[in-house]
Amino acid sequence: MTSPHAWPAISGIAYGGDYTPEQWPREVWREDVALMHEAGVNLVSVGIFSWALLETSEGEFDFAWLDELLDLLHTHGIAVDLGTPTASPPAWFFAQHPDARVITRDGTVMGFGARGMASHSSPAYREAIVRIASALAERYGSHPAVVMWHVHNEYGVPVGEDYSPQSVAAFRAWLRERYGTLDALNAAWGTTFWGQHYGAWDHIGAPAAAPSVVNQSQRLDFARFTDHQLRACFIAERDAIRVHADQPITTNFMANQSWTTDMWAWAREVDIVADDHYLWAADAEGEIGLAIAADLTRSVGGGKPWILMEHSTSAVNWQPRNIAKRPGEMARNSLSHFARGADAVLFFQWRASRFGAEKFHSAMIPHAGTGSRVWREVVELGGALQRVAEARGSRVHADVAMLWDFESFWAQDLEWRPSVDVSHAERIRAFYERLWRDGITVDFALPGHDLSAYRLVVVPAQYLLSAADAENLTRYVAGGGTLVVSFFSAVVDEHDAVHAGGYLAPLADALGVTVEEFLPLRDGDTCTLDWSGESPATLAADAWAEDLVLAGAEVVATYADGPGAGGPAITRHRHGAGTGWYVSTRLDADGLRTVMDAVYADAGVTPPAHPDGLEVVVRRGDDADYLVAINHRDEPAALAASGHELLRGDDVGGTLTIPGGGVAVLRTASR
Amino acid sequence: MTSPHAWPAISGIAYGGDYTPEQWPREVWREDVALMHEAGVNLVSVGIFSWALLETSEGEFDFAWLDELLDLLHTHGIAVDLGTPTASPPAWFFAQHPDARVITRDGTVMGFGARGMASHSSPAYREAIVRIASALAERYGSHPAVVMWHVHNEYGVPVGEDYSPQSVAAFRAWLRERYGTLDALNAAWGTTFWGQHYGAWDHIGAPAAAPSVVNQSQRLDFARFTDHQLRACFIAERDAIRVHADQPITTNFMANQSWTTDMWAWAREVDIVADDHYLWAADAEGEIGLAIAADLTRSVGGGKPWILMEHSTSAVNWQPRNIAKRPGEMARNSLSHFARGADAVLFFQWRASRFGAEKFHSAMIPHAGTGSRVWREVVELGGALQRVAEARGSRVHADVAMLWDFESFWAQDLEWRPSVDVSHAERIRAFYERLWRDGITVDFALPGHDLSAYRLVVVPAQYLLSAADAENLTRYVAGGGTLVVSFFSAVVDEHDAVHAGGYLAPLADALGVTVEEFLPLRDGDTCTLDWSGESPATLAADAWAEDLVLAGAEVVATYADGPGAGGPAITRHRHGAGTGWYVSTRLDADGLRTVMDAVYADAGVTPPAHPDGLEVVVRRGDDADYLVAINHRDEPAALAASGHELLRGDDVGGTLTIPGGGVAVLRTASR
Amino acid sequence: MTSPHAWPAISGIAYGGDYTPEQWPREVWREDVALMHEAGVNLVSVGIFSWALLETSEGEFDFAWLDELLDLLHTHGIAVDLGTPTASPPAWFFAQHPDARVITRDGTVMGFGARGMASHSSPAYREAIVRIASALAERYGSHPAVVMWHVHNEYGVPVGEDYSPQSVAAFRAWLRERYGTLDALNAAWGTTFWGQHYGAWDHIGAPAAAPSVVNQSQRLDFARFTDHQLRACFIAERDAIRVHADQPITTNFMANQSWTTDMWAWAREVDIVADDHYLWAADAEGEIGLAIAADLTRSVGGGKPWILMEHSTSAVNWQPRNIAKRPGEMARNSLSHFARGADAVLFFQWRASRFGAEKFHSAMIPHAGTGSRVWREVVELGGALQRVAEARGSRVHADVAMLWDFESFWAQDLEWRPSVDVSHAERIRAFYERLWRDGITVDFALPGHDLSAYRLVVVPAQYLLSAADAENLTRYVAGGGTLVVSFFSAVVDEHDAVHAGGYLAPLADALGVTVEEFLPLRDGDTCTLDWSGESPATLAADAWAEDLVLAGAEVVATYADGPGAGGPAITRHRHGAGTGWYVSTRLDADGLRTVMDAVYADAGVTPPAHPDGLEVVVRRGDDADYLVAINHRDEPAALAASGHELLRGDDVGGTLTIPGGGVAVLRTASR
Repeated sequence: MTSPHAWPAISGIAYGGDYTPEQWPREVWREDVALMHEAGVNLVSVGIFSWALLETSEGEFDFAWLDELLDLLHTHGIAVDLGTPTASPPAWFFAQHPDARVITRDGTVMGFGARGMASHSSPAYREAIVRIASALAERYGSHPAVVMWHVHNEYGVPVGEDYSPQSVAAFRAWLRERYGTLDALNAAWGTTFWGQHYGAWDHIGAPAAAPSVVNQSQRLDFARFTDHQLRACFIAERDAIRVHADQPITTNFMANQSWTTDMWAWAREVDIVADDHYLWAADAEGEIGLAIAADLTRSVGGGKPWILMEHSTSAVNWQPRNIAKRPGEMARNSLSHFARGADAVLFFQWRASRFGAEKFHSAMIPHAGTGSRVWREVVELGGALQRVAEARGSRVHADVAMLWDFESFWAQDLEWRPSVDVSHAERIRAFYERLWRDGITVDFALPGHDLSAYRLVVVPAQYLLSAADAENLTRYVAGGGTLVVSFFSAVVDEHDAVHAGGYLAPLADALGVTVEEFLPLRDGDTCTLDWSGESPATLAADAWAEDLVLAGAEVVATYADGPGAGGPAITRHRHGAGTGWYVSTRLDADGLRTVMDAVYADAGVTPPAHPDGLEVVVRRGDDADYLVAINHRDEPAALAASGHELLRGDDVGGTLTIPGGGVAVLRTASR
Repeated sequence: MTSPHAWPAISGIAYGGDYTPEQWPREVWREDVALMHEAGVNLVSVGIFSWALLETSEGEFDFAWLDELLDLLHTHGIAVDLGTPTASPPAWFFAQHPDARVITRDGTVMGFGARGMASHSSPAYREAIVRIASALAERYGSHPAVVMWHVHNEYGVPVGEDYSPQSVAAFRAWLRERYGTLDALNAAWGTTFWGQHYGAWDHIGAPAAAPSVVNQSQRLDFARFTDHQLRACFIAERDAIRVHADQPITTNFMANQSWTTDMWAWAREVDIVADDHYLWAADAEGEIGLAIAADLTRSVGGGKPWILMEHSTSAVNWQPRNIAKRPGEMARNSLSHFARGADAVLFFQWRASRFGAEKFHSAMIPHAGTGSRVWREVVELGGALQRVAEARGSRVHADVAMLWDFESFWAQDLEWRPSVDVSHAERIRAFYERLWRDGITVDFALPGHDLSAYRLVVVPAQYLLSAADAENLTRYVAGGGTLVVSFFSAVVDEHDAVHAGGYLAPLADALGVTVEEFLPLRDGDTCTLDWSGESPATLAADAWAEDLVLAGAEVVATYADGPGAGGPAITRHRHGAGTGWYVSTRLDADGLRTVMDAVYADAGVTPPAHPDGLEVVVRRGDDADYLVAINHRDEPAALAASGHELLRGDDVGGTLTIPGGGVAVLRTASR
Repeated sequence: MTSPHAWPAISGIAYGGDYTPEQWPREVWREDVALMHEAGVNLVSVGIFSWALLETSEGEFDFAWLDELLDLLHTHGIAVDLGTPTASPPAWFFAQHPDARVITRDGTVMGFGARGMASHSSPAYREAIVRIASALAERYGSHPAVVMWHVHNEYGVPVGEDYSPQSVAAFRAWLRERYGTLDALNAAWGTTFWGQHYGAWDHIGAPAAAPSVVNQSQRLDFARFTDHQLRACFIAERDAIRVHADQPITTNFMANQSWTTDMWAWAREVDIVADDHYLWAADAEGEIGLAIAADLTRSVGGGKPWILMEHSTSAVNWQPRNIAKRPGEMARNSLSHFARGADAVLFFQWRASRFGAEKFHSAMIPHAGTGSRVWREVVELGGALQRVAEARGSRVHADVAMLWDFESFWAQDLEWRPSVDVSHAERIRAFYERLWRDGITVDFALPGHDLSAYRLVVVPAQYLLSAADAENLTRYVAGGGTLVVSFFSAVVDEHDAVHAGGYLAPLADALGVTVEEFLPLRDGDTCTLDWSGESPATLAADAWAEDLVLAGAEVVATYADGPGAGGPAITRHRHGAGTGWYVSTRLDADGLRTVMDAVYADAGVTPPAHPDGLEVVVRRGDDADYLVAINHRDEPAALAASGHELLRGDDVGGTLTIPGGGVAVLRTASR
């Protein structure tokens, strides 16, 4: 907390949302500030899509309305997170710079009328974003209402890759910087395959649509390049703002919903990590996906408090079926983010837009107005956050880490993999869900991180693993850690080349096993395993099996049937002071529980015995701990605990009872 | 019937089809006219795709073959509906005017080799269609064979929207005309959302492919513009013909199968409404879809007799599985159109084409020749139509209207609506099917029409409803009408902006209820309702529920479970002298029957007690009524009726028996 | 065997695979040749994707590494099939000739980075392929290692049709050559339909994306043109090589997996027919698809021994789920190809690539190295092939022919056919599978071939049948043959025009029946037939029925229900000395067995009584026959036979036992 940019200068938990007064007449502005007071709102984000109103033609600015707005908000004690509007350049910009338009992989030029339509590599766009960001910072860098800067909006969504000529030129420059020589590039990309050797830098293009599958190493580098270019846009704006302004600068990530930006790298560039999170409506247990996103957001920020920059009071508008939240659900969602480290609970958006692409997105003030259930719950939530404000700055602790590596996901998602049934997202959810149900809090990590503080490291999907990172994981095990690795991991190196020695070879020491051959199952086929642990059992699996070669590991389960029949399926290996597990197939939920129970025992992790559906997370403060208990069932749940419950304000001695659908926040003695 | 252009100068019911002698040698022409006599054909449409043969290069005409053809037909007493061939410009036209080609939303330029490929906004195309239409009218305006003009073919199919530069330029001009000022356009389109404010007319484009969802108000206007441009093409040709010719002028609509043209507006421009209708083969009860199309065609024409310009003797060729009609089905289809107001029964086409894209489309003379079942039934149908000729000019009467509003459909079909399960076509079919099974004849109407003559107005899907139209519906109820409104209606105004006051607010007076929040269901989920009418019942529903706010209405059914559990589901409201019903969920067929039975009672509509599967419609003439009864079951059906049956020529005293699969047309005393 | 180019100059069965040493350092080269010896490899294909390494810029060649490689291989007694690398032009080629890039039907320009991306009609490409082929032939035409030339790779995959301007120009030239006059072209294409008449050659384009379905005759001609252009590329290279080299020249087909090249025409241009074959992993009985491909390959080559140029040791990488072969499966596959006439068993590829698009494709040396199951089986197979080497040059004999006509398939696959459920591939598989299970060996043939040597000709799908070919089939029946024709055959002529007289008319004499109307079934509907043969039965069918008109045939089965209820379904007709059967619906497997048993009886074909799952094929040599028996079940199978078993080297007297999953090759006395 020593950085000058560590947190916006407001008290308590931040509460509010995106605010778009440009869509409303002045009388609504006055009603808004009154209602913000009623709801306890203390922070709003403004200006995110206002470029066309602020810079009316190239270099011509009109700040009058924004001056008036910021003064009004400041007068009423509402702090401002001031956006730069660069996610949506004005119509005049594209009219003047038609070559700044994004081109898709198959050559379609993206038109105006939506948002996010500029090429990240266009010199004209780069110049324009610095101009508007500088102008805003110069004018408002000292405005007392402004406590934070919000650069752009959701980088990577809806546009990531760009195949325009300007992007191709930038890609070549990036490659020169990365590889130095064409020989190095040719080697990294394996261009001897299919005769793709390059003899000149300017023969290299973006991996556009081609008659067959395009070089995957090239595509992986293009994903890295895309992430780099987007981040360079952010950095250019950030640095332009910093010249004139001293408030913290952030941008809103989309953890778990955008896969085109490497949040680990981005987190190093922002002053505070912020995230937008939306439930996936088709998921009947959306609270688990929410927990993944929240834990990931906290983890990329190194555990520091973070900002929930957007979520929704009820339904969104862009899914096939946009399910409304049920009574109490918005509060449960908000306090689950809080439990996992968010010190700000903000929404998209304050007041529902009557028009535009997102008119059916819920808001703090819905179309139905303040007589509605949603508004009543918004006001209640504002009060609840004030009652838990003392927990601000406390931190979540985890004994278990799970690997989450964007580069590996980018590589795995390319074409021509062994089976379409293998998905990193599916396995991460499967392992995380097991830990969530077992009441175990998880940090996410990269394979190159120092993992020695964790009792257990879970590797659901690490298709790409560099030799150096494999050594790090091996050291972790040797040092006493417990590592559990799922199938289709450690297959390729950082260039998407199969490791010398074959699949899993870099982890052979840690796991005592390698993979001779992948054995995907046909669509819908299943297989079973004989589990030979303390309680012998039959485990069910599908989609995938492997032909394993033992190199010291003991066999814990054997394929009873399917393509791997008779061979080892799950292994356990002592290496140094630790243990390495390998799971070579896609177990169902029951099978995974059997395995993880044994893994916990090795790791010395003891799952608490919470009632089903009760989510419990502890934040540790300097003077107290805060236990947050969220009851996802309709029936009351009880927990052995003592302390002071902040939401209702009563003391708890021994048994904390959480009503059906309710939440408790218990201040307890520090652990 | 006072207009000089009211009906082609032929006697009896018109019978025939599209005729393409240019595909056949002269000896076949001579065989054709003999067979036309055998079948009772009195009208054929010619020249619809003959541009390349008539204008062999720009401004060079060759009418010799058409002269010969018209003379031959006239000599044999076959009247001609003369087409303008503008749905398929010649190859030389595109070679000279490559910029007249249509461009799709994603930028693909549409090539030659199919049909319908010219840009409706191309000046070269506009010039060319006037040239060919004028030349035809000048030459044949006084030809005795020609009794009608058939402009173009199926406007809007296969090409509606065009994203070419010429279309963009025309769109800007249309917008200037519509809005006058950029301020008005910016307000109408809600361009403050996502920063889309326009500062110059020439920055506005067509709503082409973009990285995210494009401004829906813009897209709705582009749909209106497209409809307008297509109609302007029609008007240009019509006016060019009228200079030289006095016969009625029409074009063939595609009721219920094309959604890109606003038939209400088009009907005002034609002398006679004409429709093409094809069964949807996957629909096992295609006769219901047929009835919808026929009623819609009649309704847009204000109830006047209309022309069935195309249908098929058996299978078509462009559906996934092209089901052949079974014996008797062609006659049932034809006489159902007749029952619903058609005074012309025409086919695509006279003789099956041996080549070309539609070689597998059935015809009056199939590939198998005149020894076939189809030909025998064609001859029989010709005789039947002669026997019912006295009914020509009689009119259908309906006590019930159903709203059908293309603008609302265009708006609803745009992206990012609350649930993909909500479909206007589905609800229209559901309500119409209920009325069809109940033997109740329906007119279609616009929400702004004078509806006071109807006992009941059904609103299956009116997502877009202007304030003025809502006032009209409210007046209808106040004046004593019964109105039943289905969910997701009255949501937005004419700019696709949510109504101030929230969903359904404009109908709050009429219905006594508004909608606080939409509650879509997850895929496959269902819910039930407790119906508290005279016979309490449980109703089943799916896809959708709503959180209602009562404003005077009584609750007739309550959600028993699902996202709306405990809240009102169906309401009934007395307003002035009438009653407004609101149904907030997607009921299954049984549920809808329960509701509609109660609605009928309010409206004073008494469904007749016809046998299942017997379709009965009455046409009212000046001196007699004509009851048409079509038996869609294999077993005979009986109906209490007396009069003279025209098809078999016998008198009926008390009980009319219609054989399985058969049809009766009974002349009865005027009602 | 009298041609100087009849077979590469190696002894025994050729064994080996694609070899890509350019991907590996020199020490691996040395290991490779040692391992080739261990496995019995005697032939490798090199240089297939080496263009960029051989011609480093236009006209600059670097042959040093290839000199070294060929010398190394020759020193170690490994013969070389030398590839021309024209399937993957270098990056510099496209940089210099951007207009040589392929354009798709919807206008997308295909980029670099995959393979197969050049326009077959680009003059620059044509010039470049002759230059590199000439250079290679000049340098290596006399190299003692080189025993064969391998031109290009898999023509037609992944690129067939090209819509670039250069291709359009070539198409016009090809059409002029084909039709001579525009009148002839207009007649052939039926351009009077939809007004597509052409008045100038340069108005004609490729059948690119258009608003509706494009002229099918034009599309059929474009398919013919595409095949012709690809073949012209082959011929240009072949002729360039022949100037300097005397070895046989081939290219690798993709029988049964590529549908864009007419293998019958291509087989006339190569010295030896070669095929690439890969199992379709989703097919649990892939051995049947393999047999189809092998029989087709042999048949297009006129029965001469052929080369299995590529198959896989285990999984491939480009299918949705890439199933690994199970122990013994690779040998069964290899020996099934051998049994069906292959005298060469080669793989893609020798050593698995660590990088590139196909890194997950199996190889003779897998990523797991020589300690693996795959390598052990590769070595075993090498030994097995040496033990059966005496069978080289022997030939397969068949009494039954099945028609396989690419032109008909191209036509049938176009849009707007009567039902999407009708598939030539499905019916070919159904009939072939019946024959395979009955142990009957099949040749494939064209309808214009001399078929008189066959007892039975099976026609599963001959949608397009010219009048001349129909006469040939009719003569075949008259001469004593038995012909069985499945539905949707003899529908159109060579221009895709429906035959005068209606469907099936050209075969009316041979079959005694024509088709009045097609009666497709709705999705999922089924129907049954009453079979009135010696054992009356009920047959099940789906997808399709027909309304037949008898013209002399006897009715063998009648539709019991469905759209054809009461009408004839299967007919049998004596014509001259033979018999013509017609099957008008899609029978299930049991139904097809009932029909084929009766057909066999007419044809005098007696299926052997092999155990289920035992595949038996006989090759006839000059001095002995070779019976190959492949057991696809896990249990041993026995066969009455005597002779000398070559794989195990023991004599068999009366009963040959083949172990579960095993293969036997029995030398027996000539039949």
